[in-house]
Amino acid sequence: MADVDSKIDLASDGSQRPARTEIGVTTGPIRGSKKIYVGPTPIHGCRVAMREIYLDPSCDDAPVRVYDPSGPYTDSDAHIDISMGLPEIRKDWIRERGDVEEVTQREVRPEDNGQLGPDRSGGVAPFPNVRKQVLRAKPGMNVSQMHYARGGIITPEMEYVAERENLGRARLAEYKRDGESFGAEIPDYVTPEFVRDEIARGRAIIPNNINHPESEPMAIGRNFLVKINANIGNSAVASDVATEVDKMVWSIRWGADTVMDLSTGRNIHDTREWIIRNSPVPIGTVPIYQALEKVGGVAEDLTWEIFRDTLIEQAEQGVDYFTIHAGVRLPYVPLAAKRMTGIVSRGGSIMAKWCLAHHKESFLYEHFDDITEIMKAYDIAYSLGDGLRPGSIADANDEAQFAELYTLGELTHRAWKSDVQVMIEGPGHVPMHKIKENMTKQLEVCGEAPFYTLGPLTTDIAPGYDHITSGIGAAMIGWYGTAMLCYVTPKEHLGLPDRDDVKVGVVTYKLAAHAADLAKGHPAAQVRDDALSKARFEFRWRDQFNLSLDPDTAEQYHDQTLPAEGAKTAHFCSMCGPKFCSMKISQEVREFARLQNQDSAGFIATEEAEAGMAEMSKVYDETGRELYMGQGDREHD
Amino acid sequence: MADVDSKIDLASDGSQRPARTEIGVTTGPIRGSKKIYVGPTPIHGCRVAMREIYLDPSCDDAPVRVYDPSGPYTDSDAHIDISMGLPEIRKDWIRERGDVEEVTQREVRPEDNGQLGPDRSGGVAPFPNVRKQVLRAKPGMNVSQMHYARGGIITPEMEYVAERENLGRARLAEYKRDGESFGAEIPDYVTPEFVRDEIARGRAIIPNNINHPESEPMAIGRNFLVKINANIGNSAVASDVATEVDKMVWSIRWGADTVMDLSTGRNIHDTREWIIRNSPVPIGTVPIYQALEKVGGVAEDLTWEIFRDTLIEQAEQGVDYFTIHAGVRLPYVPLAAKRMTGIVSRGGSIMAKWCLAHHKESFLYEHFDDITEIMKAYDIAYSLGDGLRPGSIADANDEAQFAELYTLGELTHRAWKSDVQVMIEGPGHVPMHKIKENMTKQLEVCGEAPFYTLGPLTTDIAPGYDHITSGIGAAMIGWYGTAMLCYVTPKEHLGLPDRDDVKVGVVTYKLAAHAADLAKGHPAAQVRDDALSKARFEFRWRDQFNLSLDPDTAEQYHDQTLPAEGAKTAHFCSMCGPKFCSMKISQEVREFARLQNQDSAGFIATEEAEAGMAEMSKVYDETGRELYMGQGDREHD
Repeated sequence: MADVDSKIDLASDGSQRPARTEIGVTTGPIRGSKKIYVGPTPIHGCRVAMREIYLDPSCDDAPVRVYDPSGPYTDSDAHIDISMGLPEIRKDWIRERGDVEEVTQREVRPEDNGQLGPDRSGGVAPFPNVRKQVLRAKPGMNVSQMHYARGGIITPEMEYVAERENLGRARLAEYKRDGESFGAEIPDYVTPEFVRDEIARGRAIIPNNINHPESEPMAIGRNFLVKINANIGNSAVASDVATEVDKMVWSIRWGADTVMDLSTGRNIHDTREWIIRNSPVPIGTVPIYQALEKVGGVAEDLTWEIFRDTLIEQAEQGVDYFTIHAGVRLPYVPLAAKRMTGIVSRGGSIMAKWCLAHHKESFLYEHFDDITEIMKAYDIAYSLGDGLRPGSIADANDEAQFAELYTLGELTHRAWKSDVQVMIEGPGHVPMHKIKENMTKQLEVCGEAPFYTLGPLTTDIAPGYDHITSGIGAAMIGWYGTAMLCYVTPKEHLGLPDRDDVKVGVVTYKLAAHAADLAKGHPAAQVRDDALSKARFEFRWRDQFNLSLDPDTAEQYHDQTLPAEGAKTAHFCSMCGPKFCSMKISQEVREFARLQNQDSAGFIATEEAEAGMAEMSKVYDETGRELYMGQGDREHD
Repeated sequence: MADVDSKIDLASDGSQRPARTEIGVTTGPIRGSKKIYVGPTPIHGCRVAMREIYLDPSCDDAPVRVYDPSGPYTDSDAHIDISMGLPEIRKDWIRERGDVEEVTQREVRPEDNGQLGPDRSGGVAPFPNVRKQVLRAKPGMNVSQMHYARGGIITPEMEYVAERENLGRARLAEYKRDGESFGAEIPDYVTPEFVRDEIARGRAIIPNNINHPESEPMAIGRNFLVKINANIGNSAVASDVATEVDKMVWSIRWGADTVMDLSTGRNIHDTREWIIRNSPVPIGTVPIYQALEKVGGVAEDLTWEIFRDTLIEQAEQGVDYFTIHAGVRLPYVPLAAKRMTGIVSRGGSIMAKWCLAHHKESFLYEHFDDITEIMKAYDIAYSLGDGLRPGSIADANDEAQFAELYTLGELTHRAWKSDVQVMIEGPGHVPMHKIKENMTKQLEVCGEAPFYTLGPLTTDIAPGYDHITSGIGAAMIGWYGTAMLCYVTPKEHLGLPDRDDVKVGVVTYKLAAHAADLAKGHPAAQVRDDALSKARFEFRWRDQFNLSLDPDTAEQYHDQTLPAEGAKTAHFCSMCGPKFCSMKISQEVREFARLQNQDSAGFIATEEAEAGMAEMSKVYDETGRELYMGQGDREHD
C-alpha cells in the first residue's frame, strides 16, 4: 500500500495555526483489486462500496466481488484529508426523516481529556472542523432503526445493508445451498424488507448514531455475514493524531467491520473525535472507562450523574454502540469471588468494586431505563457487556456467567420495549464442548438478539498464540450463530499489539468468520474459495495471492522460495517441483481420462513438463539449489 | 536453548576419516522445566520420560508434569553424539521375545541415494555406525504389537505407553470428568491391560519397527492423548547431515509425536539412516517417493518389484510406519477428474497416473497382502494414504474421497487378519459442517482404526495463514475422535517452511490437540490450563511463560512492552496498569467479599495498590511512557 500524505494544520502547542506538519494514514487499494460502488440505482444518492478482485485474462472468469469495510481509504480516486473528515453520506437521510433537531454541543471540559488545561495544551489538537451543533431526536421522538423498522419503514440504511450483504449478486443464489445453520434463516437473496424485518424482531442491528453520518451502514445479525471487531486505544504520546486515526484505518483495511475505541488516560475526548470523523465503520466504546478517568480512577467515586454526562458527551460525538455492564449485579459478585480467575472484564471489575464499596445495587442496572432514553435519542445500540465472562477454562459456563446472562436477557427485553437496538457480549475462555451451550442459552434468554463474542479461547496454555486458541472458538461459535467476533491478537495476555499484531488478529478473525459463513451455508461465501482454488489448480499464482485475505503475505512467502518472476507463471511450485507436482499430474490425468478412449500416445503434456523441468533447473541456481529442501514439509504426502 | 556440539568424523569427500568438522543439533531443556524419568518401577530397566515445569516457590503447588516426545535432547545430563545415535532402549525387549533373527542388511545401491557414485561422493556421509546385521521375524513369526496383544501378551512397550499416557498421575482422576467424547472411552487411569486391549481391537497402534530400538513407545488412538505429526524432508545441499537431523530434533522439541521423512531427490537412503538412528519418536515415510526416484521420476515405469525392494530397504533401516496409497483404484480416477482441484496428494497422483498409463488396477492394491507380509515381519504400521482427499472446499466429502475411504476400510480388515497395525489418513480441505461426517464414516468403515488427518483446512481463502485455517479443523476433528493431527505450516501452498514456520506449525497443532483433549474430557488435560490460569491470576509471570507451549515467545512478547525485571513480579500488566487491572481489582473484590460481614474499612489492599502505582510510574519512564498505548487492544473490554 502507498502512504498518501493527508495535510493537517497543527501548531506544536496544539492550537490551530497553519503548520508544516505532514501526517498520513494508510491509503491505496489492496493489491490486485479495486474499490467499486454498486447498486441497481443509487440509494438516495449513494452507491454501495465493495471491492473487486481482478483475475488473469487467461481465465474467462469475472472479477470476484468481496465485502469491504475499508471505506474511501482504499479508493485511489478518493481525496483523504483527516482534518476534514469523511463525507457525510447519511446526512440527508437522517434529516429528511424530520424527527431530529439541532442542539448546541455540550462544551468540552478539562476532565473529558484527562485534566488537561483549558487550552488543552500538550494534548491532542482538537478536531479542526468540530461541529458546534449536533443532532438529537426531537422531544418524544425515537430515531432508532428498530423504531422505524417496527413502524414498517424501510430506511436507506436498510436498503444499503441489503445491497451490501448480497455482494452484488443477482437475485438468485448461484450455489446449491449447503450448510448447517442451527436454525438461522439466511435467505438466498437479501431484500430491504428482509433487513427491516430482522431489525424489527431485534435479530439484527444497524449501529449508526445520527451524529456519525460518515458511517457506511452495516448489519450485525445471525442471518447476515459474520462480522468482526478490532479494538484500538489511545497512546500516552498522542501528539500525532494520525497515528491514532491510522489504527482505525489499518484495522478496517484488513477487514474489521466495527472498531472499538477503548482509550483511557488523557486526550480521550479529542482522540475519539478524530477517529469518529474519519471512520466509515461503526465505533463502539465502554463509557465507564472515561467516567472512571473523570473521578481519578477511583471506582467508588463513580456516580450516575458523571456516567450520564459521559454518555451525552459521547452520544453527541457520534459513538454508535456503548458497552454497558448493567448485568454485573451486587448479588452476583460473591459468585465471581469463588472463581479461578475472578473477574477479567475491566468494566465488570470496576462495577463489582463499586457495588461492594457502597454495598448497593449497580447504578447501571438501577438507571437502565434512563440510559435507554439517551440511546433512543441518538440511535445508539446497546452492547450489553459480559462483565462476568470466564477468564479461564476452569470458570467456563459457571453460575456467575449465566446469572449475568439471564439479567442481560431481562435488560434486552426492557430496551426493546423502547425500540432500542441491542447486542449481547459473550465469552471469553470456553473449551470446545461448552461453546454450543453459550450460544443456545444466549439465543433463548436474549430473544435472538445478536451475540458478540470474544473468541472464545479454547485452551489457556498457549499465550503468544491466543489469536489461534480463540480463532478456533470464534469459528465454531460463529457457525453456531454468533453475529460478530471480537478479535484477539497474538499479544493477548502478554503485551500491547503492534501494527503487525493487529493485522494478524484481523486476518485470523476474517478467516474464522468466513469459515463460519461457509459452514452456515451463506449462498455467496464459497465463491471466493472456489475462485482461489481454481486459480491454484491452474497455477495462476498472482490470482491466488490476490484472492487471499492477505495478498502481501502470500506473495512474500512464495517469493522467499521462488523469487524469480518466471516462477509466478510456472506450472509447479517449490514444494514439489514439476516432477512431483500432484496438481500438474492431476491435470494430465484429467486430460488423459478425456483421451483414454481415443488412440492416445501417452501424456500430451510431456514437452510442457520438460520445459517446466528446464525452467526449474534455472530457478534452482537462482535459489542456491535449496529448492528441494524440506519439500515434503508441504503435506503428510 | 543451547547448542551442544556433537562431534562427528567426516572428510570432505564424505568417506570416513577423522576430521575437524563440528556439527550440532538443538539441545538443552525448555526453559523453566527439567527432563524427568518416572514410573513405579523401571520397566525392564527403563523409566518413562516426561517433562516437569517448576513453579515459583511463592505458590505451594507441585511442579506440572507434561507429555514430552523430545527425547534425550532436552536432558541436560544426556551426552548427545549424532554419529553414535541414541541408546537402544528397546533392544533387549525385542530380542527377549525370541521371535526375531539377525539377517545381513540389504546392500545399499546407487539408486537408493539418487544415482550417486558407488563411493557416494558429493552426497551425505553414510551413518558411521550403520548396522551390518538387522532384525527380521523368524520364518512364520509375527512380531507386531497387535499380534502380541491378541495373544494376551502385555509387552514392555504397552507398559511404557500406559505410564506415559497417565502423565505420572496417581491412580485416580484428580478431576471431575467433564467433556463430550463422542463415544470414545477414555479411562480415568490407563493400565497396561487397557493398552493391550486397545491394540488388540485395532483401536490404537504403537508404531515401532524392531529395527528402530531407539524409539520411546507411544500410542496413537482415540482413547489416548491426541498426537501430532511434523513433516521434514531432505535438502538438495545435504553435506551437513546435522541440519537434516536437527529438523527432526527441532520438531520434537516443540511437541511433534511422530515425524515423517518425505525426502526425495538424492541422499534419501543415507539421510534417513541418520534421522532414524537419532530419533526417539516413530518415523514415517511414503515409500512410493523413493521408488519413483529409482525409476527416474517416471510414474509409468514403477513396478511392484522396485516398490517391494524399497519397502525392504526402509524396513531394515527401521521406518515405523509406511504411507501406502492402496486405496487409489483405477475406477476411482475418473471420479477425481471431475473435481475442482483433482488429486492433490502426490502419492495419489503418481498412482493415478500409473493406473491410467497401464490401464490396470493399482499394484499396491493388487499386492496388498504381499505388503502386509513384509509389515508383520518388522512390525511396521500401515498409514493407509488418502490419495483422493479433497484439495478444496468444493471437493470436500465427494464421491472420489468416500469411494477411497471405503476401500481403505476393506484393506484395514485385511491387514487386521494378519495382526498388522493400521491407521487411516484423512483430509484435507473440509468446511466445518462437513468435518463430523468424515469422522463418523471413518470410524464406521475402518472399524475404529486410528484416524490421522491433515488439518482439515476449513476455508481456502487464507494462504499464508493455513496453519490457522487448518488448526480450526484439526481441533474439531481431534475432538470428534481423530487420534493424530498432521501439522500444516504458514507456508502451506506457498513455499518451504523455515525453522520458525516449523515451530509455529508444531505449536499451533499442539494447542489444537490439547483443545481436543480438554473437550473430550481427558482426565489430566486441564491440569496445565488451571496451573497457567492460576499463575496468571496471581501475577506469577515467569510461571505463566514457562507453562505455555512456547515460553520463549510468551516472554519475548511480554518484554516488548515491559522489559523491566520488576514488571515480571508486578501485580499488573501493560494492558491496563494497576489502576485498571481487573485481576487485581477482582482479588480485592474477593478479599472484600470475605470481609464484608466483618467491620471492614474499605479495601485492605490500598497501600499495595499505591505501591503498585509507584512501581508503575517507574516502569512508565523505563518504557518511554508508552504504557497506555492501545491498552484497550487487550479485549473488547
